[in-house]
Amino acid sequence: MADLKYEITEHIAVLSESPKGWTKELNLISWNGREPKYDIRDWAPNHEKMGKGVTLTIEELDKLRKILGDLV
Amino acid sequence: MADLKYEITEHIAVLSESPKGWTKELNLISWNGREPKYDIRDWAPNHEKMGKGVTLTIEELDKLRKILGDLV
Repeated sequence: MADLKYEITEHIAVLSESPKGWTKELNLISWNGREPKYDIRDWAPNHEKMGKGVTLTIEELDKLRKILGDLV
Repeated sequence: MADLKYEITEHIAVLSESPKGWTKELNLISWNGREPKYDIRDWAPNHEKMGKGVTLTIEELDKLRKILGDLV
């Protein structure tokens, strides 16, 4: 991931924070200058390092939203 | 990830499918025999390989659900 450029274009929400200060977040991220996508990922304090995560299109996020609404 | 044991305890939903047949899914997965967690991840056809993803506790999933409900 060292040569991957990204920009967090919108901080949407922090889902949780670990005792060491890593946060699990939902953000809008532009990868390599492309159109921003939704992204759920762990981050070190101050976003200095990124952990594993998934990138979601608006269609995937919308489907996830409907599923989660039905789950509860 | 080679020494990580997991079991998909519940297939909840397929969020999308790529032209090569990889699917992005929401499942309940037990890692190393622990209590299952929610998991959003890419999978090769027939779940033969797993891609990157995030694991979510019920609390994180619930927070995500509320956020997504507000987003639209």
